[in-house]
Amino acid sequence: MTTSFPAVAAAIKTTLENQGFTKLVGAEVVSIEPGVVVMALDRRPEVLQQAGLFHGGAIAYLIDNATTAAAGTMIDRTTRSVITAEYKINLVAPSTGDRLTCRAEVVKPGRLLTVVEAKVTCRTDGEEKLVAVALATIANLDVKASGAA
Amino acid sequence: MTTSFPAVAAAIKTTLENQGFTKLVGAEVVSIEPGVVVMALDRRPEVLQQAGLFHGGAIAYLIDNATTAAAGTMIDRTTRSVITAEYKINLVAPSTGDRLTCRAEVVKPGRLLTVVEAKVTCRTDGEEKLVAVALATIANLDVKASGAA
Amino acid sequence: MTTSFPAVAAAIKTTLENQGFTKLVGAEVVSIEPGVVVMALDRRPEVLQQAGLFHGGAIAYLIDNATTAAAGTMIDRTTRSVITAEYKINLVAPSTGDRLTCRAEVVKPGRLLTVVEAKVTCRTDGEEKLVAVALATIANLDVKASGAA
Amino acid sequence: MTTSFPAVAAAIKTTLENQGFTKLVGAEVVSIEPGVVVMALDRRPEVLQQAGLFHGGAIAYLIDNATTAAAGTMIDRTTRSVITAEYKINLVAPSTGDRLTCRAEVVKPGRLLTVVEAKVTCRTDGEEKLVAVALATIANLDVKASGAA
Repeated sequence: MTTSFPAVAAAIKTTLENQGFTKLVGAEVVSIEPGVVVMALDRRPEVLQQAGLFHGGAIAYLIDNATTAAAGTMIDRTTRSVITAEYKINLVAPSTGDRLTCRAEVVKPGRLLTVVEAKVTCRTDGEEKLVAVALATIANLDVKASGAA
Repeated sequence: MTTSFPAVAAAIKTTLENQGFTKLVGAEVVSIEPGVVVMALDRRPEVLQQAGLFHGGAIAYLIDNATTAAAGTMIDRTTRSVITAEYKINLVAPSTGDRLTCRAEVVKPGRLLTVVEAKVTCRTDGEEKLVAVALATIANLDVKASGAA
Repeated sequence: MTTSFPAVAAAIKTTLENQGFTKLVGAEVVSIEPGVVVMALDRRPEVLQQAGLFHGGAIAYLIDNATTAAAGTMIDRTTRSVITAEYKINLVAPSTGDRLTCRAEVVKPGRLLTVVEAKVTCRTDGEEKLVAVALATIANLDVKASGAA
Repeated sequence: MTTSFPAVAAAIKTTLENQGFTKLVGAEVVSIEPGVVVMALDRRPEVLQQAGLFHGGAIAYLIDNATTAAAGTMIDRTTRSVITAEYKINLVAPSTGDRLTCRAEVVKPGRLLTVVEAKVTCRTDGEEKLVAVALATIANLDVKASGAA
């Protein structure tokens, strides 16, 4: 990989922030390190469900993006790209707080598939409370290959 | 259950449509039958990712809502409520079309847990193409019980 | 693919039946059709857990093998092989009956990944009762490529 | 909980070791601490697949048992019991070594559901190599309640 990591991280951040859905949801990219991506989302009525909790779909959005981006830090982006193959989410507690933070970390990089774990916390009365955990599989594609895995 | 199913379906529809996140995403509730809920989302730039596909998070949002609502059709809503415990999503093809449709169907209702399958198709050149499949576990809570599963 | 399907099915059956673990567990390959594999396991004390139900691990074994084999029917075995990437299992009812049957069916074949659903029933008082559902991702490897996905 | 933890751990160990399937597979319970259970399985031909790797079903067996047992350490066993609701397994590397070790740890105990993570390593040339990761949901049942979740 000839590109420096800061340049890679900046490219990933720009890609995420320019997604139409990221702008709609209003999420932010907190940090991008090799194998680890952190994203966050502040409470506002537009990202909640009927009981005033963060919507499960907003939590899933963070997990989807952060896990894929974490896998994306492990590849040579000049020849390969990443695509989400699948993920599983456990919602473990109600997210009653004011800010969600999703930390995705690569468990096992691979030639074809990268496995990534994620934990989502919700800042509640000043403390981070675990609200979701996830396990994702991200596929690495040759840039020249067409389409989906 | 003393409430008629049309009244139950109307109550679920209202709940879903009044969620802040549902209004933000712009999804619609297509139909609610016992054990089966269909939701849909039309293409617009705000629900896409960088390559012009529907965002995985938007697909997850549909699955989260439709599977939970499908489980919700199986309970006596005067004494119980439903909460998403977990789900797994496989993204199986790029969603290049103009409208996503998610059909969630209860596989096995249970006293504590209901298991629900979902399939998401994307209308592409007039044909429905499968783009995601999911398997979800929904918990049934006593209405008087406090908080999360 | 120049090999006839009956020859492919026979090769897959032989591979499954000669696995050390298959012989230990005592499972049988019921049928192999394009995209669909059925395996079964009869009740005996050695495959049960403490309450006299079929052990979840025995159910998982059937799902692991049947889903991978189903994906294996979709590839050209002269140049490619299949390897299980991941699966998710829901155990939906106690398996109190006398015979487990797992039916795995390909939902979406792909170049790199094949997605497979499985349903496991348990013959109970002469009727097939659903006891587990699963969703699996199987990776296709080039035969010449080394090792894991 | 009036029972001392060593007595609880001993009861769980006895239950696991007396399962017909545990005896058939030949697994051992390495340790049981509050929220953490470790199980292991030594290589022998009867637990392998066709390529000489530990069979995915044997790995799933360890995960099924260890995650459920880990959840079982968190409940009052005089009034409640645990049952596996679902789990997801990622097989991340081939298990070519001589001994599998599965460590299951509770991520979030709950009133109805306990979420447990597991990691499986394979001792290979004297080093522990990660071969699988899993995420499980275990249901807590009232002892007097009948049957499955």
